[in-house]
Amino acid sequence: MAGVFITFEGPDGAGKDSVLRRVVPELTAHLRVPVLETREPGGARISEHIRELILDPANTEMDPRTEAILYAASRRQHLVEVIRPALAAGKVVVCDRFVDSSIAYQGAGRGIGEDAVGALNNFATEGLTPALTVYLDVPASVGLARINAHRRDTQFDRLDQEKEDFHDRVRAAYLRLAADHRDRIVTVDATQTLDQVCADTLAVLRTHLAAYWQE
Amino acid sequence: MAGVFITFEGPDGAGKDSVLRRVVPELTAHLRVPVLETREPGGARISEHIRELILDPANTEMDPRTEAILYAASRRQHLVEVIRPALAAGKVVVCDRFVDSSIAYQGAGRGIGEDAVGALNNFATEGLTPALTVYLDVPASVGLARINAHRRDTQFDRLDQEKEDFHDRVRAAYLRLAADHRDRIVTVDATQTLDQVCADTLAVLRTHLAAYWQE
Repeated sequence: MAGVFITFEGPDGAGKDSVLRRVVPELTAHLRVPVLETREPGGARISEHIRELILDPANTEMDPRTEAILYAASRRQHLVEVIRPALAAGKVVVCDRFVDSSIAYQGAGRGIGEDAVGALNNFATEGLTPALTVYLDVPASVGLARINAHRRDTQFDRLDQEKEDFHDRVRAAYLRLAADHRDRIVTVDATQTLDQVCADTLAVLRTHLAAYWQE
Repeated sequence: MAGVFITFEGPDGAGKDSVLRRVVPELTAHLRVPVLETREPGGARISEHIRELILDPANTEMDPRTEAILYAASRRQHLVEVIRPALAAGKVVVCDRFVDSSIAYQGAGRGIGEDAVGALNNFATEGLTPALTVYLDVPASVGLARINAHRRDTQFDRLDQEKEDFHDRVRAAYLRLAADHRDRIVTVDATQTLDQVCADTLAVLRTHLAAYWQE
């Protein structure tokens, strides 16, 4: 593969969207090669149909393993139609969420098992692994507080507690992944101000992409 | 699990449908426990939606691995909603095709790899394996000749050759599975007359289900 595959990961409320919105234009401006920003389903028609199935609120009977398998199917088609061709064309591909999200959310969050979900996704990706993953780290309580900032009611109820437990498991899985893959995953402290998070992220990208960088 | 899980397998043209049509009523008549005949998607709403995606002729861009993953997702939901509850209720479940079909058709036929497709499906089934698999064996040439018996044109073209090569790989995989799982898979020679194939199949079922059989 000629290009460079970069993914962004993080728990809900880590500010991933805001960071990408500021950082990707900087990449586009400074890299000597084209940049493709994508996220699943990324315009792959079949992946979009699969996502509709996953997200349809009518599908209340969907088993957690069915959901994990459908995410892997959507990922596979997006990889074949979007990511691999862009890498083959020498582009820097920046993908919002990839396999690590499934390991954290389905494997740990839903309790299916991180290794099992990793192996499932390895079938989908045939081992295609990002060269760099930027992990935006926030504790579950901070991430959820950001998301809930606009909520009217201030009561913390049983469902909120379940949600926080779920996100605690997600974050713990991300921290384990970061510790196990120090060569690939760089952790950025996302409890900082957005300006500082973006500066830290850009520094990481600039170091990793030094060969392609121009002022 | 209180019930008994039985699957039927075979290449195209093995006569599986005709055999099931005759044999299942015999089971229903002679077993002291209820019999459930099913096949994927088996009425599971989510599985039906997944099958529509797989079989939609418009989805020409579907990657073979995406297809294999979607079959596993459909299987998972059918297993959770149909097979497991029936087994828990003590039924004899007769399922038309299961994991062996994916190993033979996707793993060997499409060349993805039998072990990889087996592992993928193990994620979907959590190791739920049939107690008995009846494998109806025919050479690809015989099976395809049966299917093509009503075709007008008699020319054997390049596509037919590709089809026969595909089905040769499928059958070879079934034979390997049968050799590797002698405790589970019983092979019935399906080149015989339908009467004989049904008699052989019933003898196998009667032996396996002796504890539940009544005249």
